[in-house]
Amino acid sequence: FIAIHRSTWRKCNSGDMDPQPRKVGVVGLGLIGGSIGLDLQSQGWNVQGLVHRQVTAERAVARKLVTEVSTDPACLASCDLVILALPIPLLLKPDPVLVDALPKEAVVTDVASVKAPVLAVWRRCHPRFVASHPMAGTEQAGVEAGRRDLFRGRPWIATPDESTDSDALASVEALACGLGSLWKTAAASQHDQAVALISHLPVLVSAALLRAVGDERDPGVRQLAMDLASSGFEDTSRVGGGNPALGVAMASGNTDAVLRGLAAYRWSLEQLEEAVLNQNWQQLRQELERTQALRPSFLSDRSVRPT
Amino acid sequence: FIAIHRSTWRKCNSGDMDPQPRKVGVVGLGLIGGSIGLDLQSQGWNVQGLVHRQVTAERAVARKLVTEVSTDPACLASCDLVILALPIPLLLKPDPVLVDALPKEAVVTDVASVKAPVLAVWRRCHPRFVASHPMAGTEQAGVEAGRRDLFRGRPWIATPDESTDSDALASVEALACGLGSLWKTAAASQHDQAVALISHLPVLVSAALLRAVGDERDPGVRQLAMDLASSGFEDTSRVGGGNPALGVAMASGNTDAVLRGLAAYRWSLEQLEEAVLNQNWQQLRQELERTQALRPSFLSDRSVRPT
Repeated sequence: FIAIHRSTWRKCNSGDMDPQPRKVGVVGLGLIGGSIGLDLQSQGWNVQGLVHRQVTAERAVARKLVTEVSTDPACLASCDLVILALPIPLLLKPDPVLVDALPKEAVVTDVASVKAPVLAVWRRCHPRFVASHPMAGTEQAGVEAGRRDLFRGRPWIATPDESTDSDALASVEALACGLGSLWKTAAASQHDQAVALISHLPVLVSAALLRAVGDERDPGVRQLAMDLASSGFEDTSRVGGGNPALGVAMASGNTDAVLRGLAAYRWSLEQLEEAVLNQNWQQLRQELERTQALRPSFLSDRSVRPT
Repeated sequence: FIAIHRSTWRKCNSGDMDPQPRKVGVVGLGLIGGSIGLDLQSQGWNVQGLVHRQVTAERAVARKLVTEVSTDPACLASCDLVILALPIPLLLKPDPVLVDALPKEAVVTDVASVKAPVLAVWRRCHPRFVASHPMAGTEQAGVEAGRRDLFRGRPWIATPDESTDSDALASVEALACGLGSLWKTAAASQHDQAVALISHLPVLVSAALLRAVGDERDPGVRQLAMDLASSGFEDTSRVGGGNPALGVAMASGNTDAVLRGLAAYRWSLEQLEEAVLNQNWQQLRQELERTQALRPSFLSDRSVRPT
């Protein structure tokens, strides 16, 4: 076993930031879109919001998420940069009216947590599309969720392919770094598999633990388990007890990678179970020594942080 | 689905505490034994320690874990209460010299995390044995680990059977409550199954997650997973990255219950995997709504706390 440490993050090139305030469009003003709107306005950008419903438009204005807001895609006409902060299903079957309204010379990016299917659709929809994924979130959702500094110190991954416009990619990097994110690029398929392993798989692994204890048939044992559970169970069950809609979105948006992750996980658990079944305590100890050595590589003391 | 909440804890009867300082023996001065020694001395008890090695005896004296210490089991002769704070293997094959040295009229208890096998051995070794389990711990171990107030606000479970002396049980309750613990009794088999589900199973579930990601074959994906892992992965992997010796002790001391827990867990995970495989998102949502509703029952805001 060789310990692998977190790679260093790319330092942002602040020179990429355009000193002149420009106009940016944000399509969808939920947690991610609303937070982007707040931060960009504070940096002097003119932010044009586009939402589906009038009631959302009104709340977005009341919360000052954007400079201007509309329910008409034509509002994007003068934008230099458009951020598609839409749910994955809407990204995968984009409204043709929206696609037609995007200025051909603008840079277009998205914020979805799954990249290969989004890139497959959008590389055909717009010549300057850049697939990207800011990895920031809270349990909140909707127009009330956006907040300042959501992206500061958080990873923002772009997944360019051979058809990606390199100037457009540089603009999205400048956007991400301007919001305080840690920039990285990766192949879309590698991104999707990595995110399945460290974000989507833990939700199912953790939910299965809650489910197993909840299904215990002896009510005395079940009650005792509830009474005795402490920090170890609390931590291991946290993401499995989270927002169900988010868990479904992860699994439905990244199904193949999640299934591969589950297969790897099942095999991994079987190795540990075999050691217990055979009472091979030396093997179990070696396994647990390995996982103990592995874990620090996944902790978040990232080596480069933006100032 | 019916939500089940934590049962209330028994309030301690402070009247059970003997107002006159008595002599207690503590066999083994690791984290649990040493912490008990510190707390009891602060309450005016005369604490007699018994350890195996002279070097441990010297450290125990230097740290003032006990009033007196010896490596000779005969030192227990005048104790009213003896706490066996020994590792499980030593409890399951007790030294006959130790057994013979225990005063027949003393109350004897243990602190092991597995109760059925300990009770099976010790009900034959001593007429006033009470099997008990203070559920407190840190990552530390050994004579340097003991510390004040380790048990305050933590569960302390006794597992009496039909042969348990009720006065002896009341003495152990008084001990536990005097140290600030939350007292409960349960059948030994129910205790062992509950602890397997909420303490031992999470270690294996969590270790398997680290192992699965560590075994990812694509080095680019593995590196990206390390770079992108955030709080969800950190929490879910915490107990699987803990002390290997502790994980082995749990699995080897409670093997049958751990294997039953693993079987229940595997089945539970398969139900979730099936929903993903069939792209049955309504079923997955129902599952995740259930686990979301279940989790609060396992959180530690216990309804009765000692003052």
